[in-house]
Amino acid sequence: MLLLQLEDIKQLLTNVGEKNFFLQLIDTLQSDYKRWFEFDKKPRLASHVDLGVIELMPISNALYYAFKYVNGHPKNPQKNKLTVMATGQLSLCATGEPLLYCEMTLLTALRTAATSAMVAKYVANKNSSVLALIGTGAQSEFQYLAYSFIFDLQEVRYFDIDDHAMQKFATNMAKFEIKLTACKNATEAVIGADLITTCTADKCQQTVLTKAMIDKPVFINALGGDCPGKTELEKALLEDATIVVEYLAQTKIEGEIQQLNDDFSCVELHQIISQQVTLNVQTQGTIIYDSVGFALEDYAILRLVYRLAQQYQLGQQIDMIPHLTDVKDLFSLLK
Amino acid sequence: MLLLQLEDIKQLLTNVGEKNFFLQLIDTLQSDYKRWFEFDKKPRLASHVDLGVIELMPISNALYYAFKYVNGHPKNPQKNKLTVMATGQLSLCATGEPLLYCEMTLLTALRTAATSAMVAKYVANKNSSVLALIGTGAQSEFQYLAYSFIFDLQEVRYFDIDDHAMQKFATNMAKFEIKLTACKNATEAVIGADLITTCTADKCQQTVLTKAMIDKPVFINALGGDCPGKTELEKALLEDATIVVEYLAQTKIEGEIQQLNDDFSCVELHQIISQQVTLNVQTQGTIIYDSVGFALEDYAILRLVYRLAQQYQLGQQIDMIPHLTDVKDLFSLLK
Repeated sequence: MLLLQLEDIKQLLTNVGEKNFFLQLIDTLQSDYKRWFEFDKKPRLASHVDLGVIELMPISNALYYAFKYVNGHPKNPQKNKLTVMATGQLSLCATGEPLLYCEMTLLTALRTAATSAMVAKYVANKNSSVLALIGTGAQSEFQYLAYSFIFDLQEVRYFDIDDHAMQKFATNMAKFEIKLTACKNATEAVIGADLITTCTADKCQQTVLTKAMIDKPVFINALGGDCPGKTELEKALLEDATIVVEYLAQTKIEGEIQQLNDDFSCVELHQIISQQVTLNVQTQGTIIYDSVGFALEDYAILRLVYRLAQQYQLGQQIDMIPHLTDVKDLFSLLK
Repeated sequence: MLLLQLEDIKQLLTNVGEKNFFLQLIDTLQSDYKRWFEFDKKPRLASHVDLGVIELMPISNALYYAFKYVNGHPKNPQKNKLTVMATGQLSLCATGEPLLYCEMTLLTALRTAATSAMVAKYVANKNSSVLALIGTGAQSEFQYLAYSFIFDLQEVRYFDIDDHAMQKFATNMAKFEIKLTACKNATEAVIGADLITTCTADKCQQTVLTKAMIDKPVFINALGGDCPGKTELEKALLEDATIVVEYLAQTKIEGEIQQLNDDFSCVELHQIISQQVTLNVQTQGTIIYDSVGFALEDYAILRLVYRLAQQYQLGQQIDMIPHLTDVKDLFSLLK
């Protein structure tokens, strides 16, 4: 099987090129979302441990079985460790044979940003030119990058309660030819924005975006690390907008819509991608993509990097599975 | 994190010595089974695919979170692939950080055999000297090996419907100083046996062992690859014996006891290991260990090989998790 370490993924991005990689990833996501009903979808399996949560996220179709291991430990930064770390494995369904073990901390940021941009491509105003980012933590620059390949962005307006995170964002963004507007609060950040991403990280109910702050029809991606009890948008804003989710059953538990009634229902992403449903900001007014991250997105990026790594001959072959002349002779391994 | 490939596990067994490894593994299993109530136990998450099943088996306590990926594809041997292949990961609960990615096909055979021998140590006749193996497939020699370190075995009686598997077993066993008795059926194999392991692989209800075949109190380990609809023992034999299981909720679905009433209840392994309950063949008559394989056993062997691999400096350090000066600066990976 193939092992892809962090350096391999970085090399792969260099070889393929960031723009080309994001466009291929968006294509792959679209292709997999179109085949929504071919997938065996399961709720993520969460273990609540003392200082956080550890999850396994499996999904499969006839070809591959993919799973991601991912943690969420809000206090990790105090130990200089990442809040979210992830690994993943891709296996062949026909035999169960593992094909790939891969870093997924970076891949998760990439697939999350690519999914955001893909959704915006379908439902946001085509002429969107101003992106507002509320929260400039680990995901923020990836969000910009993915949107920049889909829209002709002219300005990024940004705000974070952490000055240091604002400064880090400004430094990382300096290499891009884009107008950067540091804002002193979220209200200022969203002025004139066509695309808004909220990606804050506190594990509690808070309101970073209210209905009153929105002055024109806009695309909002409520991205912030979702879990039961954690929301970012005002309920009135949710009630006033058209909402799109990945997988209603999961988003009801983890997403913004946990603030709404139990019988709330809305369009799922696959309906838009397969063009069963057409939605856009121009005709519909404000659209909120209440994203929580779904296993299908991990599946898509794992199969893409597996193919590209082979194409560019990246990674290391590792010997994890016995290959025996006589399959009943497992004991021959001890000879 | 540490990567342990198949060769590393083989080297580890050579360095530690097979007997010493099995004895340490049995100690580790006992120690973990004693702390049964400290573990967050979840049912395995199974995906039924076209030609088999793919499962994730997670478990955690305050220290580690372990999971195993394992498939079961009965037709794989026709493609010269193993029916069961496995990989596993061990992570630190306090931070969610992955510590170890490891082959587990071989480890599963080792932990299964060690658990069998551990249970026999508690409940079988201490003077057991004759082991009967019904089914001489991939697990059989491991079973012998583990028992041989606990009991003073004098004879192994064996039978398999597959002549080739019988021959393979005889060849592998030739290096051990033990009387080998090839039998022409299961009835002959169990004559005079003190310890009986049934490990057949057909995915259907069959009866490889009946009450009439047992002529004295004996320890029986019903080991064969368990799943709903697959059993090996006659119902009358189950009704007549004392049964021990790993985890009643799981064994009711997968084990021999699926033949019994829904309200059937029996002793769980941890009660014996923690000496809340004392059972043995001499006082109780025939005891059946209806094993299905439980995540706790994977946890035990993963933490053991993780410690031993460090002690013997085996394996390869791999870079799967970003280590950042500023944990909010994930984007620095793309610089």
